[in-house]
Amino acid sequence: MSRYLTLIPYLAAQKILKNSAKPKYQVKTILVTESSGLVTYEPVFSRLTVPPGAISQRDGYAANCSETLEATDKNPVRLEKYSWVHTGSPLPDGYDCVIMQEDTRTDNSGVISIIKPARPGQHIQKKGSEIHTGKMILPAGHRINPEDIGAMVGYGITSVQVKSMVAGLIPTGDELKEPCIAPGPGEVIASNSPMMAAYLKELGITSISYPIVPDDPEKIREAIEVAVRECSFVIISGGSSTGIRDHTSRVLGEIGGILYHGVAIKPGKSTLAAIVDEIPVFGLPGTPGGALAVLRELILPWLSDSGHPVPIPHSIEVTLAESVPSELGTDDFVQMVVGRVHDRYCAALVPRGGGQMASVKSNGILHIPRNCEGWKEDKTGIIELTRLFPHPDNILLFTGETDPILDFLDQFLRSFQMELFARKTSWETTLISMKNRKFHGGVVARPRVKGRYLSVDHSLLSEEVKTITLAEREYILASRELFHPETMKGKSCPTLLENSFLSAFMQEYFLAHDIDITQVSSITPVCVNEQDIVYKIRSGEIEFGPCPAFQASEYDLVGPVIGCISIDLMIREEDIASDQMKRIIDLLSSDEWKDTVCLIPGYSSKRSGQISSFP
Amino acid sequence: MSRYLTLIPYLAAQKILKNSAKPKYQVKTILVTESSGLVTYEPVFSRLTVPPGAISQRDGYAANCSETLEATDKNPVRLEKYSWVHTGSPLPDGYDCVIMQEDTRTDNSGVISIIKPARPGQHIQKKGSEIHTGKMILPAGHRINPEDIGAMVGYGITSVQVKSMVAGLIPTGDELKEPCIAPGPGEVIASNSPMMAAYLKELGITSISYPIVPDDPEKIREAIEVAVRECSFVIISGGSSTGIRDHTSRVLGEIGGILYHGVAIKPGKSTLAAIVDEIPVFGLPGTPGGALAVLRELILPWLSDSGHPVPIPHSIEVTLAESVPSELGTDDFVQMVVGRVHDRYCAALVPRGGGQMASVKSNGILHIPRNCEGWKEDKTGIIELTRLFPHPDNILLFTGETDPILDFLDQFLRSFQMELFARKTSWETTLISMKNRKFHGGVVARPRVKGRYLSVDHSLLSEEVKTITLAEREYILASRELFHPETMKGKSCPTLLENSFLSAFMQEYFLAHDIDITQVSSITPVCVNEQDIVYKIRSGEIEFGPCPAFQASEYDLVGPVIGCISIDLMIREEDIASDQMKRIIDLLSSDEWKDTVCLIPGYSSKRSGQISSFP
Repeated sequence: MSRYLTLIPYLAAQKILKNSAKPKYQVKTILVTESSGLVTYEPVFSRLTVPPGAISQRDGYAANCSETLEATDKNPVRLEKYSWVHTGSPLPDGYDCVIMQEDTRTDNSGVISIIKPARPGQHIQKKGSEIHTGKMILPAGHRINPEDIGAMVGYGITSVQVKSMVAGLIPTGDELKEPCIAPGPGEVIASNSPMMAAYLKELGITSISYPIVPDDPEKIREAIEVAVRECSFVIISGGSSTGIRDHTSRVLGEIGGILYHGVAIKPGKSTLAAIVDEIPVFGLPGTPGGALAVLRELILPWLSDSGHPVPIPHSIEVTLAESVPSELGTDDFVQMVVGRVHDRYCAALVPRGGGQMASVKSNGILHIPRNCEGWKEDKTGIIELTRLFPHPDNILLFTGETDPILDFLDQFLRSFQMELFARKTSWETTLISMKNRKFHGGVVARPRVKGRYLSVDHSLLSEEVKTITLAEREYILASRELFHPETMKGKSCPTLLENSFLSAFMQEYFLAHDIDITQVSSITPVCVNEQDIVYKIRSGEIEFGPCPAFQASEYDLVGPVIGCISIDLMIREEDIASDQMKRIIDLLSSDEWKDTVCLIPGYSSKRSGQISSFP
Repeated sequence: MSRYLTLIPYLAAQKILKNSAKPKYQVKTILVTESSGLVTYEPVFSRLTVPPGAISQRDGYAANCSETLEATDKNPVRLEKYSWVHTGSPLPDGYDCVIMQEDTRTDNSGVISIIKPARPGQHIQKKGSEIHTGKMILPAGHRINPEDIGAMVGYGITSVQVKSMVAGLIPTGDELKEPCIAPGPGEVIASNSPMMAAYLKELGITSISYPIVPDDPEKIREAIEVAVRECSFVIISGGSSTGIRDHTSRVLGEIGGILYHGVAIKPGKSTLAAIVDEIPVFGLPGTPGGALAVLRELILPWLSDSGHPVPIPHSIEVTLAESVPSELGTDDFVQMVVGRVHDRYCAALVPRGGGQMASVKSNGILHIPRNCEGWKEDKTGIIELTRLFPHPDNILLFTGETDPILDFLDQFLRSFQMELFARKTSWETTLISMKNRKFHGGVVARPRVKGRYLSVDHSLLSEEVKTITLAEREYILASRELFHPETMKGKSCPTLLENSFLSAFMQEYFLAHDIDITQVSSITPVCVNEQDIVYKIRSGEIEFGPCPAFQASEYDLVGPVIGCISIDLMIREEDIASDQMKRIIDLLSSDEWKDTVCLIPGYSSKRSGQISSFP
């Protein structure tokens, strides 16, 4: 087996699938009431004529219009033959019109006279005016909507034949663990099957999730042989590359015919397709991002080409909030977040390293075709939306510092059907973004030392900016067990950058407790990552150190508070009166928000909702 | 009770609901794998740190970069301490970088040398770089997507708490019959509950469909009292007006508080809302169109205002294919079909009389606000799409004659993910539409008498137009039992308009069989509706008459073929080479189409696919 894949172009892969692979479906008869989202196998014809006979459309008198021809307001005509009818009740035999009560007079003795002529058929809904027996309600190959269910039931249909497709999902890989099992080093929980099953269910396709198969050619072969007997098509995730442990393609080559192995797409290039016993079998990368991309960009279009109704994603024209590089020769599918900033939709990159959180956060895909080296910032382009809720109009884009407190702000916004997207960028990028109006704002984290914010470089800022405080993140001098300041002497702590705020927090604490810094032993190398400090204290590598209280609490570390960082939104002053920002300000100064902040370990709500000028 | 409703404005009704009605939800714990489309009750936090320890991102050697600092291509440095690692395998303790095999040399004795310095952390994915234990994956109030399921499973979550809402659906009305029961005169099958249940299910809301309740205040009260104990909110359909049999509002007034009764919307004005035992209860019109409108335009926005994630429908800018009148003071929600004609989206009215078929065929809603007297043809406006499949790009709009054969063409187009909308308009309107370019084309039905098409008035046509024949609809001289032409004397037939094609078909037949017309007894009045002729023969009112063979066959009528009508699409000559039209032409001249036509009783495929100039 060759070490590298020979990649075929994306469109070539689509074409091969279209021409060479057909899903095998079965025909199932199911109750109409359970058919929503499924696809009709045969046309559905009305079993009824509706209405089954003429009915009255008004409360009034069924009559014969020939009796009424001479009637006027001045010369009322007495009705000889009539019958009282309700709206919706059948027209009695022998009448050809309905006269509304308003168009009649009744004298004391109950004699009814009418005051204007009626026309034949007046206020009568004719037999079959809605539908006739035998009229097609739905064609074959139609995806059933709720409205269709109403029509089928109303027109006498109780069960319907649908095209039933079953996808077989096989996870492979020695590193995979079933959910519920805590993964050890180098292990991951198999999550592609449930993700794909949920995705396919939205298309009316059910799935069989097979157990995890280890990297063993014999076992992979057995699993595939079972699946092709039971399924319309099969998706194997993992093992589709060309590494030593990637057996999928060799096995498929032995028991079937490979259609392609390697497609010039990113993510997901190490994907393959084959036919085994006439059943299409897809090999997907094991990474969730790669698997999702191949499912969405190759398998869905193939299902559509095969006649299965796959909704076309809605597209939206966006301005790119930053440049998106791409490799020539590769079709790139880039996860983005789209939100409306002022009068245009802006799209920001979702950090690529975020694992599955990138798919959770993103709401659109930017497709950069193979002949393109990437898209420049400010370019307008089309993005396909991957989810419909919330609408991009209601998604707020922030950039700068990240902090867990932003997740709680996002949660509060959900009750207004809004969503907050916040991602990490350098301070410089954050300030430039404030100017470029492709984000709603920035996030700044400012340490308070000796009661004052540490100053930040704002030379790049040309805008008038306000800050709104979300909360203050508290820092503790963490250790595995509480100790008295006097016992610190000789204990080990991380070496910190000299002018860092962590070092300032420590110094302030040492000063306040009259501790001689030189008597504390610092562990080199310099430690800049707060999370690393937590890990090192937890593992015993160092004995104490400064870290965020919320991270410390996750690892059962304890210690005194030594400082805090104010987490603030930065909003352009011109936007501060906008509806969305007013909502955020109201929210952050509400008691509900402060009460929530108080319940999060390691945060203080003391200054939440405060608005200041920045810097 | 007053005879007429006092209508409140649409926005006022929305506001009342927002301020006064809250759905009661329950909290349920369910498997993550079954949570797609449901709404989180609590935030979901990661249970894992992923990866749980540092892992290698390449196949290669785990090493210490301090060993490699002097390495160059010319001065390879022999690695003393190393360990072979796979992509994805945990980094063994005591190493700080991974060196790809490509960046090393191995001599015959297996000694490994490296040829350039490595940097710390190279090709290593750090512990927790994807997610840390305790990081929020999803906030509360979030609608769960397939991607979210992947993330939750991957990050150690197996079950999730969701907000569970149950809608209680109560159909009321003496005229209602359960599905499976053939409705008699004045009766209809209760179809609102299954339609609404399917609709709500798409929003993650389950339903309890209660049995039909007759128009009896005591029984209605009992049904409501049961439902408010079991449900988050209750929808009663039928009985919400002010007629003699409309008891809903009185009952609700007795056992709860009415919020409003009557809203100035169309359809659906006779709707009401009340609170019973703190549970919101909605009264909807019994007509499917009215019930659907109230569900979509009042209940869904209310759910959204209550914090339930309801996807905002996608909107599309359209040009109106015709004027849409509306009453001042009423918010009108008009069912339309949107398709792309040339470079714009055009929206055509769905015939209002079509009962539930109007909801099946329409794919968008035009909202005409209360201060507007309607929209003129050619106005551009915004339409909310009610379904995502097929995309309006793939919907073809035709106007003119209608015929069941068009349903079969629609079915064929489904395999190309396309849909055909065809509706009945006058011949004059059809010709004008050919000119105005807001439809893809027209449909013309031309009788053939003595082997030639009857001529049609085409004075309004200024375009070059081609016709493509779908099929020929055959006419028979229908009766309940076959009879010999010679026995027709004295039998009764309908009186036909003198110059109608039906009369021409009959005359041709009489002539060919040497029958004296005067000896056949015609029944007055003049009968112009083919369906009426069928009904009258079936009921014995007349003994024979001309009618379409397919309608006759539905009612077991038989007889000799006496003529046929060619059903043709009319396409502007300039469009004939477009991709969509080429697809239709290919389809109509295919054997598959002809074979299908042959199987439909009463149609001939002899001329299917023929293209001619028109007129």
